[in-house]
Amino acid sequence: MLTEAVILAQGNELTQGLTLDTNSHWLASRLVELGITVRRVMTAPDRLEDIVEILRRGAELAPIVVSTGGLGPTRDDLTAQAAALAFGGSLRLHEDALAQVQARFVAFGRVMAEVNRKQAVLPDGCRVLENLWGTAPGFSVDSGSSRLYFLPGVPREMKPMFDRHVLPDVLARHRISAPLHVTVRVTGVPESVLEEKMQGLERPGLEIGFRTKLPENHVKLRFEPGFPAAERLALVEEVRARIGWRAFGVDSGDLAEVVGQALAARGETLALAESCTAGSLSAWVGSVPGASRYLLEGAVVYSNEAKVRTCGVDPALLEEHGAVSEPVARQLARGIRARAGATWGIGITGIAGPGGGTEAKPVGTVHVALAGPETFEEHRALRIPGDRARVVSLSAAAALEMLWRRLSV
Amino acid sequence: MLTEAVILAQGNELTQGLTLDTNSHWLASRLVELGITVRRVMTAPDRLEDIVEILRRGAELAPIVVSTGGLGPTRDDLTAQAAALAFGGSLRLHEDALAQVQARFVAFGRVMAEVNRKQAVLPDGCRVLENLWGTAPGFSVDSGSSRLYFLPGVPREMKPMFDRHVLPDVLARHRISAPLHVTVRVTGVPESVLEEKMQGLERPGLEIGFRTKLPENHVKLRFEPGFPAAERLALVEEVRARIGWRAFGVDSGDLAEVVGQALAARGETLALAESCTAGSLSAWVGSVPGASRYLLEGAVVYSNEAKVRTCGVDPALLEEHGAVSEPVARQLARGIRARAGATWGIGITGIAGPGGGTEAKPVGTVHVALAGPETFEEHRALRIPGDRARVVSLSAAAALEMLWRRLSV
Repeated sequence: MLTEAVILAQGNELTQGLTLDTNSHWLASRLVELGITVRRVMTAPDRLEDIVEILRRGAELAPIVVSTGGLGPTRDDLTAQAAALAFGGSLRLHEDALAQVQARFVAFGRVMAEVNRKQAVLPDGCRVLENLWGTAPGFSVDSGSSRLYFLPGVPREMKPMFDRHVLPDVLARHRISAPLHVTVRVTGVPESVLEEKMQGLERPGLEIGFRTKLPENHVKLRFEPGFPAAERLALVEEVRARIGWRAFGVDSGDLAEVVGQALAARGETLALAESCTAGSLSAWVGSVPGASRYLLEGAVVYSNEAKVRTCGVDPALLEEHGAVSEPVARQLARGIRARAGATWGIGITGIAGPGGGTEAKPVGTVHVALAGPETFEEHRALRIPGDRARVVSLSAAAALEMLWRRLSV
Repeated sequence: MLTEAVILAQGNELTQGLTLDTNSHWLASRLVELGITVRRVMTAPDRLEDIVEILRRGAELAPIVVSTGGLGPTRDDLTAQAAALAFGGSLRLHEDALAQVQARFVAFGRVMAEVNRKQAVLPDGCRVLENLWGTAPGFSVDSGSSRLYFLPGVPREMKPMFDRHVLPDVLARHRISAPLHVTVRVTGVPESVLEEKMQGLERPGLEIGFRTKLPENHVKLRFEPGFPAAERLALVEEVRARIGWRAFGVDSGDLAEVVGQALAARGETLALAESCTAGSLSAWVGSVPGASRYLLEGAVVYSNEAKVRTCGVDPALLEEHGAVSEPVARQLARGIRARAGATWGIGITGIAGPGGGTEAKPVGTVHVALAGPETFEEHRALRIPGDRARVVSLSAAAALEMLWRRLSV
């Protein structure tokens, strides 16, 4: 049987077009993964009558209603009040919820303001959903055959709360056996090429999709419940084999995590010299927990002086070829590697724009180099279309990809 | 008087979370600029009964209804049919619409397929809205006092059609002159505190809102049309005065841009030594076009060796106080400043987590220091709740905030 759901979002920032509603998008894909049909997404401003109306309508439309936003401490956070009003209940202070809010503040080493008590004032008889990621508890209430789940609007609180509280409850209540999704993560292969490589893999019970999520591309496999596990694993391997080393991972873990795991496993280390990416690659590599074990040093060497001083780039080379050139990229990689005493050194120099482009070296011209054990050295010249942010992110990815190729063998 | 609108979006790709609904976000901001209040955003799958329902509901809720999607030639494009059904009309082939579709195909140098005739089959008595950017004509119909505008879902067709057909019609029908929005951008002041500071500023014709956009907070002022300009400017100044130097900007420009402008204007320069933020601050400062003029050098000094080698941190201090400590942060700032010969030096050292925390120094413990001309030196100890990404982003902001404080005087 078909299980249906409604997604609700609240907040003037949404109806005023200030904030893009990524929560509803995330929830929709999450629910669809479970084979649940989303009948409606409804967004209302911070206005009591409007919120009450979408809550009631949501409960009429579907047995599953997920609402985000409006649980904060300020005057315009009306969701709890609206929920009580919509389903004829009243509000009361929930001691257990208050204890949770207080615990959050203690954990954050902050003093709880009076206004935050409001976050524990919830509909009478609701189930409190603990928020381990922020101060606003969620809750759920029933109306007829429908159950409404209320989560905060902050994505990094909403998402784990959905997975921890809503997902298991929905699966249990509706006896859903979810299809299995596997995402093969790929670097440096366009969607169209991936689509060609997958020709002939189609079969009953398997759906193959493609997604671009810069700087990555994804091959998404959806297996119907009951699809033979052995065949499933074989198919995932087949997909990886057809793509090769550029298929760097399955499901979780971006390129920085995968490279980090490989470095840690080999007991190898990394040092970075960045010009046009200005520390973006270093920040990306450093975003992985435990990165300090292998990321020895990073240098942001915008000025020629810094390139010479920190990476020992030859001033004559800078003079002859310019800062954005193959020999300079190579010396940055080799120089920072030697300086830090790391196994691997990466050098990036380029023109991120919008200014600084020339006939010979237009915006998007980037040179990346990798230096490794003994005399190992490698260089790539890139020409990246797009704005400053895109040039920076794709140069960083291209450089990390060079290292991954060496670590993946 | 208050003019209200409803935004509708149709398509399984939206309710299945495959496509992020940027159309509704764009339309909302467009309408709000005109002082129009968006009462509801409703998204429905490609299912006739669902589309009919949101069309009727939209017409009940507001005098302006803008719908996107479902105008294509395929079977699952049901919008015209739904519009006829919803308001008791019938469908017929509109010759003028057909001529437009044919003209598009000629312009694109393509042969029109039979299925595309469907795009000219629209509700009887509707107004056809020409689409110069694609093959699907739009249309508008009235229901009671409400006018519903139907536009294609392709953003590059929808947006110009809205501006060409919908905007002028809405302005004329509702005699609208747009209100004025001013955003005061603030660093390091929580929303609740901002709300207190604004007490007593409320007055007719002014709406005050608050929004957190980490690492910033915003005070949003919305002035009704005809609000006296002099009083408006005075109020914006009053808001800034009440907040002080932490109100770093109005409308455009984040903290990195504002700091960058100040540095460039003063002809001053900056160097950064980052441990736990791993280059994030450097990447942020570097994200501003032209940053290479003032960002001389950045150093990511995870390892103690790098701290000593690059910033001349005293090994005895590291031994005695540990890498995450006030004296080390101060030496990082002073050291990188001296090394780069910059006007200002910033040092950041902390525990971003999830690992590495202790009783005395839990995850989120961060020390930031600023070193400046002569003997100027400043330090802040932070305790930041949240995950690794949040600790990194808020430490970087806190450090930049220290510099902004000095530049803003």
